[in-house]
Amino acid sequence: MTEKPTMSDEPQTAAHHAPTLTKRPVVPALEEMMGVSIPCLDHGFVRLVDYMGDDHAVVQAARVSYGTGTRRLREDRGLIRYLLRHRHTTPFEMCELKVHMKLPIFVARQLVRHRTASLNEASGRYSVMDKVYYTPDPAVLGTQSKSNRQGRGEPVSPPRAAEIRAQFQNDAEEAYARYEELLGGAAAAATTGEQREQTGEPASEGIARELARIGLPVSFYTQWYWKIDLHNLLRFISLRADAHAQYEIRVYAEALAELTRRWVPNVYEAFVDYQMEGASLSRMEVAALKALLAGGQPDLAALGMSAREQAEFRERFGL
Amino acid sequence: MTEKPTMSDEPQTAAHHAPTLTKRPVVPALEEMMGVSIPCLDHGFVRLVDYMGDDHAVVQAARVSYGTGTRRLREDRGLIRYLLRHRHTTPFEMCELKVHMKLPIFVARQLVRHRTASLNEASGRYSVMDKVYYTPDPAVLGTQSKSNRQGRGEPVSPPRAAEIRAQFQNDAEEAYARYEELLGGAAAAATTGEQREQTGEPASEGIARELARIGLPVSFYTQWYWKIDLHNLLRFISLRADAHAQYEIRVYAEALAELTRRWVPNVYEAFVDYQMEGASLSRMEVAALKALLAGGQPDLAALGMSAREQAEFRERFGL
Amino acid sequence: MTEKPTMSDEPQTAAHHAPTLTKRPVVPALEEMMGVSIPCLDHGFVRLVDYMGDDHAVVQAARVSYGTGTRRLREDRGLIRYLLRHRHTTPFEMCELKVHMKLPIFVARQLVRHRTASLNEASGRYSVMDKVYYTPDPAVLGTQSKSNRQGRGEPVSPPRAAEIRAQFQNDAEEAYARYEELLGGAAAAATTGEQREQTGEPASEGIARELARIGLPVSFYTQWYWKIDLHNLLRFISLRADAHAQYEIRVYAEALAELTRRWVPNVYEAFVDYQMEGASLSRMEVAALKALLAGGQPDLAALGMSAREQAEFRERFGL
Amino acid sequence: MTEKPTMSDEPQTAAHHAPTLTKRPVVPALEEMMGVSIPCLDHGFVRLVDYMGDDHAVVQAARVSYGTGTRRLREDRGLIRYLLRHRHTTPFEMCELKVHMKLPIFVARQLVRHRTASLNEASGRYSVMDKVYYTPDPAVLGTQSKSNRQGRGEPVSPPRAAEIRAQFQNDAEEAYARYEELLGGAAAAATTGEQREQTGEPASEGIARELARIGLPVSFYTQWYWKIDLHNLLRFISLRADAHAQYEIRVYAEALAELTRRWVPNVYEAFVDYQMEGASLSRMEVAALKALLAGGQPDLAALGMSAREQAEFRERFGL
Repeated sequence: MTEKPTMSDEPQTAAHHAPTLTKRPVVPALEEMMGVSIPCLDHGFVRLVDYMGDDHAVVQAARVSYGTGTRRLREDRGLIRYLLRHRHTTPFEMCELKVHMKLPIFVARQLVRHRTASLNEASGRYSVMDKVYYTPDPAVLGTQSKSNRQGRGEPVSPPRAAEIRAQFQNDAEEAYARYEELLGGAAAAATTGEQREQTGEPASEGIARELARIGLPVSFYTQWYWKIDLHNLLRFISLRADAHAQYEIRVYAEALAELTRRWVPNVYEAFVDYQMEGASLSRMEVAALKALLAGGQPDLAALGMSAREQAEFRERFGL
Repeated sequence: MTEKPTMSDEPQTAAHHAPTLTKRPVVPALEEMMGVSIPCLDHGFVRLVDYMGDDHAVVQAARVSYGTGTRRLREDRGLIRYLLRHRHTTPFEMCELKVHMKLPIFVARQLVRHRTASLNEASGRYSVMDKVYYTPDPAVLGTQSKSNRQGRGEPVSPPRAAEIRAQFQNDAEEAYARYEELLGGAAAAATTGEQREQTGEPASEGIARELARIGLPVSFYTQWYWKIDLHNLLRFISLRADAHAQYEIRVYAEALAELTRRWVPNVYEAFVDYQMEGASLSRMEVAALKALLAGGQPDLAALGMSAREQAEFRERFGL
Repeated sequence: MTEKPTMSDEPQTAAHHAPTLTKRPVVPALEEMMGVSIPCLDHGFVRLVDYMGDDHAVVQAARVSYGTGTRRLREDRGLIRYLLRHRHTTPFEMCELKVHMKLPIFVARQLVRHRTASLNEASGRYSVMDKVYYTPDPAVLGTQSKSNRQGRGEPVSPPRAAEIRAQFQNDAEEAYARYEELLGGAAAAATTGEQREQTGEPASEGIARELARIGLPVSFYTQWYWKIDLHNLLRFISLRADAHAQYEIRVYAEALAELTRRWVPNVYEAFVDYQMEGASLSRMEVAALKALLAGGQPDLAALGMSAREQAEFRERFGL
Repeated sequence: MTEKPTMSDEPQTAAHHAPTLTKRPVVPALEEMMGVSIPCLDHGFVRLVDYMGDDHAVVQAARVSYGTGTRRLREDRGLIRYLLRHRHTTPFEMCELKVHMKLPIFVARQLVRHRTASLNEASGRYSVMDKVYYTPDPAVLGTQSKSNRQGRGEPVSPPRAAEIRAQFQNDAEEAYARYEELLGGAAAAATTGEQREQTGEPASEGIARELARIGLPVSFYTQWYWKIDLHNLLRFISLRADAHAQYEIRVYAEALAELTRRWVPNVYEAFVDYQMEGASLSRMEVAALKALLAGGQPDLAALGMSAREQAEFRERFGL
């Protein structure tokens, strides 16, 4: 019997490790998530495979740099907040997270731009792609945003959403049927040439996997192992869990944020306080605030703010 | 009149710089290629945008490290060969190449794994994708390789190739028609909400660009600016101009190799001699060669070579 | 006659390129600096060797990503400000700067932590170190700061400064005399073994260069070629031209900032407005500002600010 | 009582973790080394702090890429050998090692060039440097190599070695005495300005730590936390455990190699077979070997080999 080189077998994640003793730092709240799939979109997931370090590992590395004599910062939480507030980065590189992800190709294309991550992706040259594709939920089938050139606005009407979803599904099914036809019956199986000769099977009319797949849409799911250090993970979350990120990658960023919150609660709390919910002010905004607090009425345009900056400034501070 | 935010306008490459004087190193053979498109596949290209450094810039940086007293290496070509032979890498990072590329998405997905490059890619969130897609030439429409799990074998018959090409084209045209329909007539144009209200245009039934594009196949072309240093460019070429790389990325690697040969001829010659046409031997192969040269008949299996390694060893040295 | 493998010959920078025509972007204000040494500290320098790109190269790359339809951002300066304000990074990677630097080892040890730069440093294994060392100017010979664990405070008295400078110089001279003695007369020269045998010179009592140098203090100067892209250069400047950086590295950061200002004036202006003279606010500070602007008297401690954060907040906004 | 901000307290490594259960992969042979210092040189060490992954983690990531259908490579050891033989790199990035190291500054300066590692180093700005310096053992106090411009040859005579060692020690002690004098009695302690005012202590004549340390030689020890992935660790070992590396860094590379051998025995075995004890042949060497094996007498110079390449080729293959 032949075996199909599909991507869906996923035996590599079946290997749950029985609990074993280690002298390394262990985070019970994250151990609970080992091997657990967090569902993302209609068929994707983020599944924790491994991690290294914890809140204290950040502190431990920072203490090597800054010595042990700082009484005020002796406490872990305080030092972590100090480090994030002052934009220190290297101590946060000392922790690593590794996950198994299943995600649509168009999301993978955005995620791969975070170049400091390590990854191993399923290859359409070696394996037959699975018939798994993304169909947007009616709630997120939005029109082009009128205010944001890269975003989406209100959902289309329910009947129109149903129509679009049916079209997406139909097109994806047809694309996959073509893919299978192009592979040919025999080519899809990992039969070797020798086996084929023995069974007298005729030469396939199919084409190579690496070519047959070029007609598949970017809504199809791929999968990979993805490993990143905590510093770069926080940067990823701050960019991709942001309201300006495409909804579909935000879902993955939020799953990763939830793992991070369990893993390094002090770091995550400080990250929210100093980055996610903080703000970057320009020279002009600082000047405007000083003037306002001193009771003045600063001329924002004269300070050098563009019309859009003025609007955003007023909105941010409720002016 | 509205302007369409398409990717095809490419005004950014229209800006040819009139020749101007510079004190920087200049490579006449590469200047000839400034702004010239090297065609790749049916609709793609590699177009030189900028470069920094030349053969001598490698030598200049190496001389800082190794001092000036090495008589034997005083000559540039000799030092370059010495550096490449001994796997020095940092002097080759001192040169940079920047190109504008148009390439199918499935090729871009392989290229982006070279994480040391800098790139800015066209965004399907901001712009409407062009109706430009890749259709493999009959000569490269190969069957799945029987010996190589990731490669392709002989081309299919001419009638079958014609049939497959027609299918690819038909499917791509249909996918693009669906894309346009999903965008809606008005959404495709960069009309702002204000304009639309003024003209009394009805609310579009279209969906956001970032969603409409998910049904497009990976055969569609994208484009980007791509910048890489010479060390990492050589590594890219060695991996992607190799016979094991997919044909479609090899075409781009060869265009980049041609630019490199013009740019840094001494480096390129040494790269071919010491890397591209050289060989990496295992401990077992070194032992086997010594024994053979001493007139012995080494037992390759006993040395620890697998069956495949033995076959490759015999083939490489014509035994 | 033998040649000494010293670091000081610097023939590699003697090669001034005669002005030649190029089709690449040229920045006249930076061309003026080609090969010019900007003095740093008592014996160091930053000397421009090469550059790639200009203000427009940033815009050109960004336009590939975001399309051409954004009327408001059509103008270069406006788009550059937009990109920096929204923390876009990749378009700024499209420009490169290469300099030759001479700097004390303790400064080099800080600079090398910017891992995205490429560098080739003089090697104390290959070459004899020059007798060039740093002696702090009386104006910067400060006491340990009382408020800042990593900084320095007021200068010591002029007589004490003179005394310390004399000690530094005396100690450095003695360390170098020992170095020369350890090298041995013959070992210091790049005579080959063959030459030595021919002249009948006795075997040297000296030790290897790589060992003799271990007694030299970190105040000695080294030199290197250093290349970095504009995005990472701006990050370097923001960290190392900051008041918290050690004075001696700040001098180099300011020389690089001056080159950057000449090279990409629009980028540099935006960088000052949005980063150097801007501010990062925490969630607590944003809340406090909103309350203050609404006429309230927020309880900073209750909002979660530490005592130090409260003090810094009050100082920043002149409360 | 004041506390001294020295580097030597090392409380961060005192925190041994009691064995705890984890679902992550555990390597018993490496757990034995957790917290254990491997002595390096006279006062240095490499101490394992944490690790992520094992031999199987490499296989697990590779299987995602290449699918599950390759019967011949189903076995872990076979797949690992295949990956290393074909220069695959990304699966080896999936494992991480973190160590605490104490090492002389001149060794640290070489190590830090491996830019893919993460590190947190003790800071001479925050802390007072310890009086710990490196004195070469008589057995490695070699003369300048006659054949190798960067290396060392035979040891000097025992009396000369004793003399040199005494000089190194005397000079280092004097440098440290000056350092302490420059710090001033009070400045060395982490007394705050407030405390000093309370005790009526006179203003210190000392200078800032960041300045006082510039007279210390590069033989003084520093320490850091250092984290690197397995791919880059193997590259580090191949370059720094090599005979051409300076002896003092080789000692650290060998300690790390020993940890690696315990950690991922299959990877390490393959690394030795395909990289450490393998060979890179040039195009000319491959041609020469083919000719020799066919019974010919190739003209090595005519093939394009330099005199040195010819000599090395003959020596490598015992011709």
